[in-house]
Amino acid sequence: MTNAFSFTLEALDGRARAGRLETPHGTIETPVFMPVGTTGAVKAVTRRDLEELGAQIILANTYHLMLRPGDALVAELGGLHGFTGWTKPFLTDSGGYQVFSLTGLRQLTEEGVRFRSHLDGTPYLLSPERSIEVQMNLGADIAMAFDECPPWPAPREAVDEATARTTRWARRSRDAHTRADQWLFGIVQGGVHPDLRERSAREILEIGFPGHAIGGVSVGEPKEDRIRVLEHLDPILPEAKPRYLMGVGTLEDLIEAVARGIDMFDCVLPTRNARNGQLFTRRGRLSIRNARFRDDPRPPDPDCPCPTCRTASRAYLRHLHLAGEMTAAILMTVHNLFTYLDMMRSIRQSIRLCRFEEFRAAALGALAAAEGDGRSRDRS
Amino acid sequence: MTNAFSFTLEALDGRARAGRLETPHGTIETPVFMPVGTTGAVKAVTRRDLEELGAQIILANTYHLMLRPGDALVAELGGLHGFTGWTKPFLTDSGGYQVFSLTGLRQLTEEGVRFRSHLDGTPYLLSPERSIEVQMNLGADIAMAFDECPPWPAPREAVDEATARTTRWARRSRDAHTRADQWLFGIVQGGVHPDLRERSAREILEIGFPGHAIGGVSVGEPKEDRIRVLEHLDPILPEAKPRYLMGVGTLEDLIEAVARGIDMFDCVLPTRNARNGQLFTRRGRLSIRNARFRDDPRPPDPDCPCPTCRTASRAYLRHLHLAGEMTAAILMTVHNLFTYLDMMRSIRQSIRLCRFEEFRAAALGALAAAEGDGRSRDRS
Repeated sequence: MTNAFSFTLEALDGRARAGRLETPHGTIETPVFMPVGTTGAVKAVTRRDLEELGAQIILANTYHLMLRPGDALVAELGGLHGFTGWTKPFLTDSGGYQVFSLTGLRQLTEEGVRFRSHLDGTPYLLSPERSIEVQMNLGADIAMAFDECPPWPAPREAVDEATARTTRWARRSRDAHTRADQWLFGIVQGGVHPDLRERSAREILEIGFPGHAIGGVSVGEPKEDRIRVLEHLDPILPEAKPRYLMGVGTLEDLIEAVARGIDMFDCVLPTRNARNGQLFTRRGRLSIRNARFRDDPRPPDPDCPCPTCRTASRAYLRHLHLAGEMTAAILMTVHNLFTYLDMMRSIRQSIRLCRFEEFRAAALGALAAAEGDGRSRDRS
Repeated sequence: MTNAFSFTLEALDGRARAGRLETPHGTIETPVFMPVGTTGAVKAVTRRDLEELGAQIILANTYHLMLRPGDALVAELGGLHGFTGWTKPFLTDSGGYQVFSLTGLRQLTEEGVRFRSHLDGTPYLLSPERSIEVQMNLGADIAMAFDECPPWPAPREAVDEATARTTRWARRSRDAHTRADQWLFGIVQGGVHPDLRERSAREILEIGFPGHAIGGVSVGEPKEDRIRVLEHLDPILPEAKPRYLMGVGTLEDLIEAVARGIDMFDCVLPTRNARNGQLFTRRGRLSIRNARFRDDPRPPDPDCPCPTCRTASRAYLRHLHLAGEMTAAILMTVHNLFTYLDMMRSIRQSIRLCRFEEFRAAALGALAAAEGDGRSRDRS
């Protein structure tokens, strides 16, 4: 590890934390939301859009990039930074989550996971060593240990076994990792079982990582179970190191997880749902397909200062979305990412002002209320 | 007609013309290329992109907008300007070109064209009166007379008949048009027959329009025939009024048409081909799918200052295009539109400097040479 990396916890308000994560490609203020750039681009927006929206770090997917264009090519062209032109930090996942989703196309052994590409059926092996090799080729600022992510629901024994394997794979991941200009985070598994989570956390801590992720969430488990896991892990995970809750979630989920000591998030919701016509606002969601927006001249969120809300009406967005225009996806992705990133800015500020609880209550209240137009809530 | 409209021919270099077209939504410097915004948005870009690229006017399609979202709704929301937020000029076509393309779904009478929507089969009538009504509802700065655009090739008698009907429909279009804040252009038909073109032009001139379009081109006819038509019409069309060549074309086509006295152009090529992976540069085209770009770290055009060429490599664009990422379409649309709009800036400047012929020879030479990378020309 070089001196380029550090994490400084700068403010604590209840269990909510505000900090600074220094990386070779710049500083990340936490709590942070990381837009998902699966193949090396966040869908429907450009690098410049992301810079203007204030994105601090992008997540890219090891699975997708190793298949296409291939990690060797990305390395040859200067890693993810050289390849994509994004100059701020990147984080790559381990590929585990994706290959475990390839039910029927994969075979799990202690060595790793053999699978066939969803693109052309080519056989691949993803193991801790290979995942780390790919991630070192991709050259993100933060890489993730290769873990086993069990589905939900799963028998306790299966979760137990996956958790134990995650520890063994975490050790192999750490041993394989040699890039000094890249941080490697460990991942805690254990499903919804507090004792397995605790065992996993203690084993991962013992191996020694500069940061910790909570994996195996956002796989369908009840929100209450997830919150219980967070509350159980909070006193176990070291305060001085960053904590990343993988694949979560809605704006409400982010606020509730910050309240339980989480620093980092990623999720496809704001980008994927934008393409499906769902807009996130601080006063709830709206589905742009709804017929009542047909002649609505107001922007998605009249209080939002994002480029989309400054220029586009609900009626126009609805029309473009129904016409299948990419411009609809662009405009709605910009709005949703702005809402997420701006919510995180408000969260950080409220923690630094020791007013997080106040902010949390008001924000959750607004999100739960009828959506912005004052009519009945849109649940689509 | 209000005083908001005027056309001033400011420079003449050979037959090439540079002028200013004043409209209620701003000044257009000619020769001008109009990006196509079929449904009220130029595909894969936003209004802000277009402003930054220097687009002066956007073309929107009457056919598409009358079907969805409907011209009455657009009118209710403030016309195209209010509906889309684009504050500069719009031009709408008459819908004729699209309905004549609906072979098998349409029925032509003297009254107009009965057709069924390609979206849901709903029956419609598009007549001169209805086309003008729709265009007045859409409220573009410039509307077009409803014409009959015969296919190519077509028997001379069919072209003759379509040309005669175009004159009768032009008169009905003019009689139906009552908006003082909108210019209505007449359209000259006549196929590749000089005598029919001349007759059409004289009849359309007699009706009296503030600007003239040459329709029925870019339908498959040989380029030489099209150029012959332009050369034949140039001395017939009044110098003091703007001339618009509909649906044309490649960068070479634009230069050759400017050399024959054309002021206005529209074409889907830069936007449609961007989505298909074809990039236009001043040194020829390149197909981003080409395997030789797999590891090419150079931008599409190393001499191009557009936002895409400042940040994205051929290798990255190829990857995103093959991965089906919308971001590829955005980045390549931005580049292609920049190339078109910048070429028009150069054309205008060269005319004002009385160096158009020099510019034309150099530009056509560069476009015909091997594409930018100095290797064999990419013809895909």
